[in-house]
Formats: sequence, C-alpha cells, structure tokens
Amino acid sequence: MRRLRIGLLGCGTVGGGFVRLVGQERERIRTRYGVDLELGRILVRDLEKERDGVDRRLLTTNALDVIDDDCDLIVELVGGVHTAATFVRRALARGRDVVTANKALLACAGGELFAAAARSGAEIGFEASVCGGVPVIGALHRGLAGDSLESIRGILNGTTNYVLCRMEEGLSLGDAIARAQERGFAEANPSLDLSGEDAAQKLAILAQLAFDAPPRRHIVRGITGLTSDDVLRARDHGRTVRLVAEARRTAGGVELEVSPRLLPENDPLARVTDEHNAVVIRGRAVGEIYLSGRGAGSMPTAAAVLGDVLGVRWRKPPHSMAAA
Amino acid sequence: MRRLRIGLLGCGTVGGGFVRLVGQERERIRTRYGVDLELGRILVRDLEKERDGVDRRLLTTNALDVIDDDCDLIVELVGGVHTAATFVRRALARGRDVVTANKALLACAGGELFAAAARSGAEIGFEASVCGGVPVIGALHRGLAGDSLESIRGILNGTTNYVLCRMEEGLSLGDAIARAQERGFAEANPSLDLSGEDAAQKLAILAQLAFDAPPRRHIVRGITGLTSDDVLRARDHGRTVRLVAEARRTAGGVELEVSPRLLPENDPLARVTDEHNAVVIRGRAVGEIYLSGRGAGSMPTAAAVLGDVLGVRWRKPPHSMAAA
Repeated sequence: MRRLRIGLLGCGTVGGGFVRLVGQERERIRTRYGVDLELGRILVRDLEKERDGVDRRLLTTNALDVIDDDCDLIVELVGGVHTAATFVRRALARGRDVVTANKALLACAGGELFAAAARSGAEIGFEASVCGGVPVIGALHRGLAGDSLESIRGILNGTTNYVLCRMEEGLSLGDAIARAQERGFAEANPSLDLSGEDAAQKLAILAQLAFDAPPRRHIVRGITGLTSDDVLRARDHGRTVRLVAEARRTAGGVELEVSPRLLPENDPLARVTDEHNAVVIRGRAVGEIYLSGRGAGSMPTAAAVLGDVLGVRWRKPPHSMAAA
Repeated sequence: MRRLRIGLLGCGTVGGGFVRLVGQERERIRTRYGVDLELGRILVRDLEKERDGVDRRLLTTNALDVIDDDCDLIVELVGGVHTAATFVRRALARGRDVVTANKALLACAGGELFAAAARSGAEIGFEASVCGGVPVIGALHRGLAGDSLESIRGILNGTTNYVLCRMEEGLSLGDAIARAQERGFAEANPSLDLSGEDAAQKLAILAQLAFDAPPRRHIVRGITGLTSDDVLRARDHGRTVRLVAEARRTAGGVELEVSPRLLPENDPLARVTDEHNAVVIRGRAVGEIYLSGRGAGSMPTAAAVLGDVLGVRWRKPPHSMAAA
C-alpha cells in the first residue's frame, strides 16, 4: 500500500468539498488503486470557524506548516494570484507535486510555474481549473495529443450561463444576477464572470494546451450590456444568446475571443442550460469532440482535484482490471 | 530529443490511417513534446498491396520481425482475439508497452494481459478500443478516478446508430444496412454490430474501468428484430429509437444491458445522429458528464492510438506551457 500524504492550502467551498470527498472515497481508493490517502496539515484563515468533517488538529494559519510538512503533494485551493504563486513556487522548489483549481494563477503565472516544475521534476495538475468536473484538460493534454487541433469553442463560465437562462425567462440582468447569487452560482462581486474575464482566463489555459503558437488577438466582451429584451428578441428569431469562448488557429496565428453570440437552435452550445459548461474541440483527424457537465460547484471541482491527486504521479490500471 | 520507435502490427483501415497521421504530426510532436516518432517494422498480410505513404522497406509478414525489433512500443491493429493475444503477450513479456484499438481482445483477454503488463512493468494503452476519437477511456481512467461512479449510458456502436437514423427516414433494415456498407460504416458481415455484441464488448471495458465489482447480469439485445415501422411509430409518439448500452451499479452488483430503447426527445442520446458515439457518465460528486464525437473511422481512431502512444509513458506539459 502506497501512502499519499496531501497538504491542503485553503478549506473554503472547494477545499471543504475535497476533505469530504477524500473521506468518502478513501476506502474505494485503497481497494482499487492500492493508495492510502492521508490528509496532512490544512491551511485556513480562521481556526475557530465551524467546518463539518474536518479534523481541527490538522488546521494551521501558517502556510509553511503545510508546505514544509512531510507530504507528497500540495493541493492549492486558496485562489487569487500572488499569495497562491508564492505557495506553489515554494512547494515546487521542494520537489512537491502541486494540484490546483486556480485558473487565475495559471493564466497569470502558468509559464513560470510550469518551468519551475520542469526544473525540480515536480508536476502540476490543473484539471479542476477549467470546467470543474468535465475532464477537458485531460482530453487536450492526453487524449487528443496525437492530433493537430483547429479550434475550441465553449461555454466556460457557469455564472453567466445561469444568468442568461434566467433572462430567457424574462428576468432583468440585475434580477438574474441576484437569483444566481441566492443559488450560490455567483460571487458577491460577480464582475469577473459578467465581464467575460473568467471565461477568457480559462480559454487562455485551454488554448495554451491545444495550440503551439501564442495568441495573436484576444477579444473579451461580457454580458453586462445585454438586456432581457435582447435575449427574448433573439429567442423569437430562433436564436439563443450564449457567452461563447472561442480559440481558433488561423494562418495569422491563434485568435481568442469571448463574446455573447446568437446561436442557432441546432448548435450544441445553444442547448447548454443553467450553470453547465460545454466544450467543442475540433481536430484535423478526430473531427468534433463535445464534452459537457457541471462546470463549477464544490463537489464536481473537488472530484477533478482528487482525480489529479491520483493521476499526477500515477495512472496504472485499477487492480480490478488485472484481476478480472 | 527522445526517440520513440513504434512497431506496427496491422496496416488496414486504422493502421494505414495511423501511418499517415504519424507522417502528418511528426514535426509538430518533435517541436511540442521533444519526441521523435520513428516507425519500425510493419506487419502486413500482403507485401504487394499498394499502400499510399507507407515505406515498403518497413513491411514484413513475420510478426516477430516487428515485436523482437529494437522498438519502444508496439501498436496492435490486427484485430481478432487469438493471434492478437499471442502478439501482445510476447510484446509485454519483452517489456514493450502496447497500444491497441482491439475491443474484442480486451473483452476476452483483458484481465490476463493487464496482469502480464503489471508483471513486466509494461503499460497497455486502449483509448482507441471504445468510441474511436472520443477520450472516454481517459476520462474514466484518470479524470473521474476520484469519484464513485454510478452509471454509464451510451451509444457505443456507430454502425447501428447509422442504420437506425436511415430507418427513421423510412428505409427498411436491409436497405439501411446496405447504405451503411456503401458508406463504409458497416462491415461486409455486420452481425457483431447488429446483434449488440460489439456494443456489449465496449460496455464491458468501460464497466471494468468504472466499477469495482464484476458484472452480475448481462443482457444483450440488438436491432435485428426492428422494422422501420417500429422506428417511425416511435417518432410519431415523440420517441427516438437508439441502441443504448448501459452499466449501472446497484445494491446487488453491476448490471450491464445493451438493448434498443425508446428515448424522449430531451434525452441527449436521442440527439446522437449517424455514426456518432456518445457516453453519459454519472458520478456521485461530479453529476453527469457527457462526451460525444465520431466513434469510428480511420483517422479518429488513429488519433486515439497516437494519443496513447504519446501518453503511455509520458505526459509532461508541452514545451510551450513551460516557455510561455
């Protein structure tokens, strides 16, 4: 039985889900993969806050207690860029593998961090950074590595998609945002989502994996200028408004664009409802591949993190396949 | 630059596509991954047959010339079970990694071969064995490894789906099969497809990856009993007939079933047309993940094989990510 001791930075929505998921899945993973998951120290802001199912003795407010502890791997879920980058740099420098759900970190400092990982022989898992539980990073990174990719087109932000679906029902932009906040699909300050910036960060990560050339042009337009009249009028003309993120390889270079589009009803992205995410990847040999699912939320994102924890070093077939 | 020398067993539809794809992608893969792909010997039945883009000097009719050659990895595309199993056993015994698209081989001898691979430290890549270019094996094997999966439901056989779509247009079963054969979507003898056996083999592979328990019940019914009247009558009632393969974890064990089903229009599988494949995977934490694309054909399958060739040993981020 191989022990895999995990240091956890951050115990908020996704971090708390991750701790619960490790508890739920530990026995299955022992039996199936011969790996014994063990939670090491856990970085939190507030030691006193009530956290269901989290062993208080593991908590610390000092990141070094987590990173410099005797662990095999660091899971970074603090979010933000600068502090997270400092933590991840230190973990990589000590040869620790890192798993992160932090798209902003990768969009801003990915190049430097991947280079640091390559120097120290560590690996970075980042499936959870785009589309939550939908394994689009793995598809681009491994499954489609043999093909020349031509374009990626997707709905990468669940908040705006939820808002647009409520506007289709006649709610104003403001009321739709309020509804999204009530349901936990939007932050208190949803401007990164509504401006298209969040989708643009995710698109940049996908484009970096998919294409060899750096982006030449980057257009980002959000949904803040839209009214429910716009959305309903589109409906009357058989069109659905979606915030589409698209990366294309063109003769002149890679072009990235995030903008609201009027999609015909037979476009698979027009059928993506509520907080779901979807991606259409077009490759020269494979044609079009479509992936969709819940793009956010505590447990889907935690599942992507745990998949990376198991996969970063280690992807033998499960025991059951060799014993069948 | 790391050299990766590939021995190829079989140069038919998929094998020929694979040789073409390696030619097309070699430069990109050198630049992007620092891997120099090199084709070693190629096993064929007929040395004299005209094969576009294949170097005749590599051809041999003796499998040992391929397997015992100084290569890093064997790609098995001869199909069938017994001969293929002999080849793969020998390759694994010599410590060679193996990539295969052979679902019948894995369904019949997978347990033994994975055990042999584990003993010799070799790996088996089999993404191409189910759903062609759609990276469903990778999704189950890695992306969703952190979650307890509950069910898999899919359209795993492109031939029967193509036939059903033609029957929706009023063609008889026989005429629809003839059309599929003309278009290259059905074998001269399509009985494995029409009986549901092909889908059942693929379902068995997915279920082995997804669940810990062996199947308790296995029902296989094909589409040979259907008439176009059945299909059209279902349409009139807002239902679409599809050959659905489903694996469920139940209290009593894992249940597998392949059978024609009447799907409501809002079922994502009802929208799968022609020779496409699709899979809906349900996990406790991730909810429903949907993947679809071209499930067969020379180039999509070859792309899945090449993805495995690159991935079996080796999945560092591309150079471009560390240099960004």
